[in-house]
Amino acid sequence: MRIDILTLFPEMFEGPLTQSIMKRAVDKGLVEMYFHDIRDYTLDKHKKVDDYAFGGGAGMVMTIQPIADLIEKLKGERKYDHVIYMTPDGQRFEQRIANTLSLSENIIILCGHYKGVDQRIRDNYVTMEISIGDYVLTGGELAAAVVSDAIIRLIPGVMSDETSALTDSFQDDLLSPPVYTRPADYNGWKVPDVLLSGNQAMIDQWREQQAYERTRKIRPDLLEE
Amino acid sequence: MRIDILTLFPEMFEGPLTQSIMKRAVDKGLVEMYFHDIRDYTLDKHKKVDDYAFGGGAGMVMTIQPIADLIEKLKGERKYDHVIYMTPDGQRFEQRIANTLSLSENIIILCGHYKGVDQRIRDNYVTMEISIGDYVLTGGELAAAVVSDAIIRLIPGVMSDETSALTDSFQDDLLSPPVYTRPADYNGWKVPDVLLSGNQAMIDQWREQQAYERTRKIRPDLLEE
Repeated sequence: MRIDILTLFPEMFEGPLTQSIMKRAVDKGLVEMYFHDIRDYTLDKHKKVDDYAFGGGAGMVMTIQPIADLIEKLKGERKYDHVIYMTPDGQRFEQRIANTLSLSENIIILCGHYKGVDQRIRDNYVTMEISIGDYVLTGGELAAAVVSDAIIRLIPGVMSDETSALTDSFQDDLLSPPVYTRPADYNGWKVPDVLLSGNQAMIDQWREQQAYERTRKIRPDLLEE
Repeated sequence: MRIDILTLFPEMFEGPLTQSIMKRAVDKGLVEMYFHDIRDYTLDKHKKVDDYAFGGGAGMVMTIQPIADLIEKLKGERKYDHVIYMTPDGQRFEQRIANTLSLSENIIILCGHYKGVDQRIRDNYVTMEISIGDYVLTGGELAAAVVSDAIIRLIPGVMSDETSALTDSFQDDLLSPPVYTRPADYNGWKVPDVLLSGNQAMIDQWREQQAYERTRKIRPDLLEE
């Protein structure tokens, strides 16, 4: 899989997608990540990439030309499954979308910044608009990193133990049960007896019940769907 | 405001919280960010910070001791408003929570990794459990960066133009209207006439209507609340 990220702040991706599991995915050749600085493509002599909004109001708008030229260039080089725009008013990202996107060959992720990109970019190039949640960030960069991380970890071979991804929250619409590790007694805080029982059927039953209880308490909406 | 982030991968924060608006917030002294490597606090002679889950199953669990010692140390130095744990089974992060948290003096954000932290850490130290959305990431680091970003940009003085944050999506339960900037005609793609009219009342009315229409189409659930 190849992911091309289009951004005004490529340095923001230095940490999050170059460590831990993401690093391993790249090192193993399971994913290629490219970070393109939109500013490199502006034809404006002052290297400007934003301008005031038509109709007034606070906040700058990212101009069409550098983004359009960069997308055209990439699309001329290979076929893309999706041109994704990260924006608070996109469809809400969820595990189901991550599962689907993890099957893509090539995707472009465009990061909005300031007040976002000129609407004509969205109308003419973008095929999918994604929001990672109902909150506003300084830009689409962290959101793009979140989507990339959620997708990449699902690619076969990326996680060291594939069953680990299958028992995650949301894969079966239930939250995960609580987890415990050694010591069994930490300053008087004890692990539930059942987990020390060695009776796997009882343990599995306890976990299922805990997952259900936790979901009912914290996220009842997941059970209604 | 002071944010202490507890993580096994402090390098993941190098990019996202050290650029753009976040950098300015730190430079201006409006926020202090500290990244603590949990591994530095383990008393295990092999520097181990995780172990197998009681009851079996795939995935490692973060042990109590280094996290407990680090939290105790920090709490001994100052009072914290919240000890937040980033986890897919927390309450869902939304703008309302960002607004509230932006009024805090000091917060700790604990990043889970692997299968998460031992439940006893959650039971005894954590005061707030947050999920940034219904999807699974390789760890809580990106989620902690998202929460920090959403909070910090709301601190007065961080955004260059404070009205810019007030017209964001979600602050009034409506998505933002589309934005346009120059040129008014890009290869035949035109800006809506009303935005060029100079009639501010008409422009405001159009934007309100667009915001409503967009919300109704993409996120009808926001209108029902």
